[in-house]
Amino acid sequence: MFKYLMPTKVICGENSLKENKNELILGTRCMIVTGRTSGLKSGALGDVTEVLKEKGIEYVIYDFIGNNPTIEECYEGGKRAKEAGCDFLIGIGGGSPLDATKAIAVYAVNDMDMYEIFEGNFKNKPLPMAAIPTTAGTGSETTPYSILTLHKINNKQSFSHPDVFYKVAFLDGRYTVKLPLQVARNTAIDAMSHLLEGFTDKKASRGSDYIALEGLRIIGKYADNLKMGNFTVDVCTNLLWAASLGGIVISQTGTTIVHSMGYALTYYKDIPHGMANGLLLGEYMERANKVMPEKVKLAMDALGMSIEEFKAFLKECLPCEVSFTEEELIKWSEVSIKAKNVPVCPFEVTREDELEIYKKCLL
Amino acid sequence: MFKYLMPTKVICGENSLKENKNELILGTRCMIVTGRTSGLKSGALGDVTEVLKEKGIEYVIYDFIGNNPTIEECYEGGKRAKEAGCDFLIGIGGGSPLDATKAIAVYAVNDMDMYEIFEGNFKNKPLPMAAIPTTAGTGSETTPYSILTLHKINNKQSFSHPDVFYKVAFLDGRYTVKLPLQVARNTAIDAMSHLLEGFTDKKASRGSDYIALEGLRIIGKYADNLKMGNFTVDVCTNLLWAASLGGIVISQTGTTIVHSMGYALTYYKDIPHGMANGLLLGEYMERANKVMPEKVKLAMDALGMSIEEFKAFLKECLPCEVSFTEEELIKWSEVSIKAKNVPVCPFEVTREDELEIYKKCLL
Repeated sequence: MFKYLMPTKVICGENSLKENKNELILGTRCMIVTGRTSGLKSGALGDVTEVLKEKGIEYVIYDFIGNNPTIEECYEGGKRAKEAGCDFLIGIGGGSPLDATKAIAVYAVNDMDMYEIFEGNFKNKPLPMAAIPTTAGTGSETTPYSILTLHKINNKQSFSHPDVFYKVAFLDGRYTVKLPLQVARNTAIDAMSHLLEGFTDKKASRGSDYIALEGLRIIGKYADNLKMGNFTVDVCTNLLWAASLGGIVISQTGTTIVHSMGYALTYYKDIPHGMANGLLLGEYMERANKVMPEKVKLAMDALGMSIEEFKAFLKECLPCEVSFTEEELIKWSEVSIKAKNVPVCPFEVTREDELEIYKKCLL
Repeated sequence: MFKYLMPTKVICGENSLKENKNELILGTRCMIVTGRTSGLKSGALGDVTEVLKEKGIEYVIYDFIGNNPTIEECYEGGKRAKEAGCDFLIGIGGGSPLDATKAIAVYAVNDMDMYEIFEGNFKNKPLPMAAIPTTAGTGSETTPYSILTLHKINNKQSFSHPDVFYKVAFLDGRYTVKLPLQVARNTAIDAMSHLLEGFTDKKASRGSDYIALEGLRIIGKYADNLKMGNFTVDVCTNLLWAASLGGIVISQTGTTIVHSMGYALTYYKDIPHGMANGLLLGEYMERANKVMPEKVKLAMDALGMSIEEFKAFLKECLPCEVSFTEEELIKWSEVSIKAKNVPVCPFEVTREDELEIYKKCLL
């Protein structure tokens, strides 16, 4: 038995927004949600405001979303969207603004306590949203998930609801082609992580596996571009599509311990999310290989790499200067073993196992 | 540039309905739309009414849908759904009831002239619908298309609208495992036709090709079952999923001349839709092979057959005793060349070409 759901309309290609302007207009008054610089630097914010002006749609811009957005930023965004009378949202950015937009869409139409959002049972349907990713990694544009930073638990926490799928997502490599190389690598490795975790975890099914393999084939095809740092708009559009495929996969399967173990690296050490996953991903695949060698071979064949080459690829793409202490790793393993995506891990994993993985990857 | 949209939730597996009862309940009062026998014989109607009774949902049954449903049957169904105050529909059956349900969902909430539906601009949002396919072929459960018989033009005509995607579809091989062998073959070949036409036509893209190949791999895997006539519930569930994948593909690409040329065979000669496609499909693939040999090879590799083997497979599975005259074929080619899916054909096609295809396949 499997369930498949991914209701977002994806429009993929160079100039996808400019050639499909009407698809952006989901209401009569808009709030654009973006980061402090990502919307501007990518060129997406300029394109969006141009379309809105042309269509006579009034808008406000909420560009206060930082990396790993806090629930407070989202709650404030919801308040402002309500005050401004907005009836639809446009999220522009990497995973942070795209995840934050979902929470803002909920808060904007629900009088609720800030933390209630994690229970997922809000009364009113969230505002409709359009997504323009400016990194090719998160896949937030094709998932019902929003991952927010919660300082009161010193970690990230997620909520999920079918009503926070985006109505439409515009994928255009023009918005990612100028990303700094390390950001392009980190985010592509985040997408890889979604595809590989979703392909190997216990919720993987024949309804998602073929999607994961397609995403891996695309990233594998452009692995050299990620190593060397040469990108064209077309390569970037393809990587955006691979990232969306990663989102489609984890919408069905969820993620597993790579993500839950990675969160501490981001929260405590400020290591970018994709890099945090990537540091742990090689060891995860080694362990998965012991319990499902045929499936891991399929994944590696799709990437066009052996596990050894895959580990070398991660190492080359993820130069990490941060140092860790054993005490930190012990503390993090105690927290991460309680995550709700531990039971779907394809191999048995205890707190001791997680500690061993952390040590092997980080010390 | 490509667009991808398929918002239906698919629940696939043995007992998918019984184990997900709440997903069936899309309103407070239901009309079940089905054929004269398909709902009963498959066992799906019994399962549905059991769930509705258990959940306390009142329902009426509209079981007047014939093969190749007429627009009149649908208009009448819409009237009855309105009179009965239904706020959601459940379609049970092969392509005929599933396509008819979509039209009924529109008529039930719109005061409109019967023929206006083909313009696709109805005012009120159609009723929400659940689908339970009892054949593995049509893919109607994952498309925004409805193909209806229109006696005033002596042909079929379709309408398409994103709001007639089903909300949810339950795929369960228990409902198809007892189908007569020829029905199983015809419908599987309809699914093949969707996958192959969608993979080769000009609207094919990297957003749909990997889905088509997955569907073809599944059908190829069970080609011997289709030849020999041995089915298990699991095989049937897999074929249902392949048919839904075919629906997902043509939701993005549409079909091409195999479908438009096949309609006349069904309208004038009562040849089942899947068989009509199948009679033309081998020659279509031969011609596609001349203009896109690499792509046709990918498709055939996914099926696990050469083109010759594929043609032999079609011949073996489609015993057709109907005879045709050249006059008929001339008349049909004059009509079918005007179809809106002719221009997406991968090779140039004139009325003379269509006549030649008809002759080669049918005389």
